[in-house]
Amino acid sequence: MIPTKQEVVEACDRVKPYVHNTPVLKSSFINELVGAEVFFKCENFQKMGAFKMRGATNAILQLSETQKKAGVVTHSSGNFAQALSLAAKNLDVKAYIVMPENAPQVKKEAVKGYGGIITESESTPIARETEAERIQKETGATFIHPSNNRNVILGNATSASELLQSHPDLDCIFTPVGGGGLIAGTSLAVNYFGNNCKTIGGEPFEVDDAFRSLQSGKIEFNETTNTIADGLKTFLGDINFPIIQEFVSEIIRVEEAEIISAMKLIWERMKIIIEPSSAVAFAALLREKDRFKNKKVGIIISGGNVDLKNLPF
Amino acid sequence: MIPTKQEVVEACDRVKPYVHNTPVLKSSFINELVGAEVFFKCENFQKMGAFKMRGATNAILQLSETQKKAGVVTHSSGNFAQALSLAAKNLDVKAYIVMPENAPQVKKEAVKGYGGIITESESTPIARETEAERIQKETGATFIHPSNNRNVILGNATSASELLQSHPDLDCIFTPVGGGGLIAGTSLAVNYFGNNCKTIGGEPFEVDDAFRSLQSGKIEFNETTNTIADGLKTFLGDINFPIIQEFVSEIIRVEEAEIISAMKLIWERMKIIIEPSSAVAFAALLREKDRFKNKKVGIIISGGNVDLKNLPF
Repeated sequence: MIPTKQEVVEACDRVKPYVHNTPVLKSSFINELVGAEVFFKCENFQKMGAFKMRGATNAILQLSETQKKAGVVTHSSGNFAQALSLAAKNLDVKAYIVMPENAPQVKKEAVKGYGGIITESESTPIARETEAERIQKETGATFIHPSNNRNVILGNATSASELLQSHPDLDCIFTPVGGGGLIAGTSLAVNYFGNNCKTIGGEPFEVDDAFRSLQSGKIEFNETTNTIADGLKTFLGDINFPIIQEFVSEIIRVEEAEIISAMKLIWERMKIIIEPSSAVAFAALLREKDRFKNKKVGIIISGGNVDLKNLPF
Repeated sequence: MIPTKQEVVEACDRVKPYVHNTPVLKSSFINELVGAEVFFKCENFQKMGAFKMRGATNAILQLSETQKKAGVVTHSSGNFAQALSLAAKNLDVKAYIVMPENAPQVKKEAVKGYGGIITESESTPIARETEAERIQKETGATFIHPSNNRNVILGNATSASELLQSHPDLDCIFTPVGGGGLIAGTSLAVNYFGNNCKTIGGEPFEVDDAFRSLQSGKIEFNETTNTIADGLKTFLGDINFPIIQEFVSEIIRVEEAEIISAMKLIWERMKIIIEPSSAVAFAALLREKDRFKNKKVGIIISGGNVDLKNLPF
């Protein structure tokens, strides 16, 4: 069942005390380049540096007191691991994070820094799911999926809700597409609060599972994941896919070189640090800019967590 | 003669249509680390990426119509070259920029991109001054010094003026110290609009000419300039030094490693791109943070123009 307008409104009220109403930035250089008015919703300035803080916070806030006492568990080596750790810490809840043993040390440190309790597993999907199940059984913790969870999706919807509250006349909002949690949430907000507004996804050609899923009508997967956009390697789930099918207008695919060039353009011209996954949404707009002439375009800058020692330029 | 409050107010009104009222950002992580409430005035988001846009704009706006027709000239290989070029372009005035022949190609391209007319000179102070004088004679253009010019200083004062307008209860404002134009302007604003507010400079030990000038009571120079803060290698001038003597409370010196670490901290935690010179002001606060416990501290982030191919981390 698709979440209602009332549920999105309630999620906004619920997470408000725990997340930043992130700034919306503009650049006259970029407006001229694109030929449209572009509004960047800066979730890279969100707590822990990504929109994932919203979904994680909303999901924990929806647990019963008994559930909160037993804690939460997820598997992630990326932003959701940090988001769930910090959201849990803010709400005095334990967060168990299953991370692949070969995850970068810097990511493990970040999770620990936010108070997450790390369990290492082999880096296969089955190994991490088995480990997460073991923790659920042993501790009674509630499993919270990074993107395929109704309350996570509702939490993610709060970013576009804020953007549409300050800019109600946007013609479209672009987001990157990875596990589908951000674009599903965004499309809910666009549907309920937009004024003839469209939700558009940006996805790397290298991991275009969501593009293919929309074409075939069933969840597709990637055989390889050779993309710099490390947050977008995952695939859709049974909870977010129906929302995406219902409310997302289109997904535009982009080449790796376009992602890097879009990322560099934003770093150099806007002086903000965005991660490659965030650049995918902007790259999609740049690729098809002729179709968006004179439009008002929102872009969700999903996050800014990058390894400064390993930049693509 | 020290500029009056009325002159600062007029400069604010004058440049307002041509510059951004830049955002003020905060970070709870940094507040906790410093033990103070820190407000970052983000001139890295200013047009052309630095506060210099303010002084350049104010200086050109103060010219007579005859002077404007003949154009402006300066010598700079840094942000002021870009600032004067863009400010002149916005006001339909010609800008002649004397740059050392060995200046990085990327900086020359930036100046050209903003419409500046470049003349190359040898990279000695005498060669560039001779070249600037030749242009003045041949074209009738008005020479505008990057930092030692009354109207440039008044334009620079508008950043701290905006900061104090939105945050009137700041206890102090930190700026980096290079040629002295920013800190002089800031100290004017602090003196006229602050409420028991102090102006504090940050300066690299490697080029601590301003620190020594305040001690000796005369303008001192640097024998070497081995600092990563490439905007701070210049020395004070006869117009800004008396203002600095009158209104600046102190200058705190920092090591190169402190500059790099402060810069990295802001990139990683605030997700904004600042140049090494900007990090010097924050590094000064970090070095002496025990003295600023529980204070409200403003920091002018002077600019964000960095070479992404040549980062210190």
